[in-house]
Amino acid sequence: MQRVKAIISYDGTNFSGWQVQPGARTVQKEVEAVLTKIHKGQRTSAIASGRTDSAVHSVGQVMHFDTPFAIPEEKWPKAINKLLPPDVQVKASFYVDSSFHARFDAVEKEYRYRVHNVKEKDIFRRNHVYFYPYPINVEEIKQAASYMVGTHDFSSFCASRTDVVDMVRTIHEVRVEEHGDELHFVFRGSGFLYNMVRIMVGTLLEAGKGLRQADDVPGIIEAKSRPAAGNTVPGHGLYLWDVSYD
Amino acid sequence: MQRVKAIISYDGTNFSGWQVQPGARTVQKEVEAVLTKIHKGQRTSAIASGRTDSAVHSVGQVMHFDTPFAIPEEKWPKAINKLLPPDVQVKASFYVDSSFHARFDAVEKEYRYRVHNVKEKDIFRRNHVYFYPYPINVEEIKQAASYMVGTHDFSSFCASRTDVVDMVRTIHEVRVEEHGDELHFVFRGSGFLYNMVRIMVGTLLEAGKGLRQADDVPGIIEAKSRPAAGNTVPGHGLYLWDVSYD
Repeated sequence: MQRVKAIISYDGTNFSGWQVQPGARTVQKEVEAVLTKIHKGQRTSAIASGRTDSAVHSVGQVMHFDTPFAIPEEKWPKAINKLLPPDVQVKASFYVDSSFHARFDAVEKEYRYRVHNVKEKDIFRRNHVYFYPYPINVEEIKQAASYMVGTHDFSSFCASRTDVVDMVRTIHEVRVEEHGDELHFVFRGSGFLYNMVRIMVGTLLEAGKGLRQADDVPGIIEAKSRPAAGNTVPGHGLYLWDVSYD
Repeated sequence: MQRVKAIISYDGTNFSGWQVQPGARTVQKEVEAVLTKIHKGQRTSAIASGRTDSAVHSVGQVMHFDTPFAIPEEKWPKAINKLLPPDVQVKASFYVDSSFHARFDAVEKEYRYRVHNVKEKDIFRRNHVYFYPYPINVEEIKQAASYMVGTHDFSSFCASRTDVVDMVRTIHEVRVEEHGDELHFVFRGSGFLYNMVRIMVGTLLEAGKGLRQADDVPGIIEAKSRPAAGNTVPGHGLYLWDVSYD
């Protein structure tokens, strides 16, 4: 058997997230069905770097699977994509050591969140950006974002329905980029709690709108309480952008 | 009664085109259902400048409808959009003379066609551009396009299933614009035959790919025969961009 590491992109619009669940269309379900078909019915699992939620997109999700076939590594995307539906696509693949694990070996993840800051909604982007029609102060947002960098207990930025115990994470960078009429939030960190990016963006937008001040952020972190932070913005603006390994 | 002229945009992905047809989700059906609801059950028709096909989008479709309500004209979009699904949107509205007719009074239409000219398909644009992974010669396309301008019998550029008798149309402009990795074809004309824009784009792409020469276009028009022209490109790259009235 050989282990394959693959980069996988998907448009989350019509998926109930990554992870297999009964009665739902999920990315893992589609991918495993294809891999199992390629392996002539031999059940083949795909393990990702982590789940993504309903409507959340991926540009650089990483997964691994095992195969007895010795085809050249670069042939895998074409073989898999031929059988996948049009909203999911394997972009690259590599043979890796059999000890490689897409989830446990990830050392950094990058998420991006797209906010469309215009007065009138663009129906063509409705599934891919968060429409936010209010005036926003980008400098205030950048200032607020700077307080999120570092190693903190991020309990305030974690959805209450979680069974995670250790709430300490290290955020390496929070960057805010202006792309025409869109604002892109870039988050790089060692790991993220459930809904963490979406709560961070919700909090930053509230600072941008003047509902909070940038200087409130240290206190929000300190509170270690979900109600201290802002709203959770919708999943459809979120992209798992990249996963790094040593 | 007052007549309302309205600009309507829709993402054609999940529509079987504009026109009402049994058992299908169409834009006209959604719009008329909303107008009828607003008019408390009084059946209200929406007449567009013309049909659009399945998967074809609109940025500037024009329609008209009649109403006994005397609300300010600019209030209509909000009232209608509140009840419309997220893939269709009224962008503007105006009271017009009761003789105004969205279809019969149109003097010019503009269509645009988006071609994504890259090697690897972008799944996020899969419903909004035509993925064309071949090298193309833009200058050859521009040259070929120039022959399409003017008043011609466009039988060669009309799908065979049509009951239209007069095949003469006047094309005012064919423009080819490069937008990053996309090529946009802009067509302005007095009117268009069934599938005309999509057959023109198919023919132009074949010239760009080297399968035809720009100088072949006058002969293709002269042939007045559908097989003389190129393939019909898919509907999902096409946008009804603007409709003009005197």
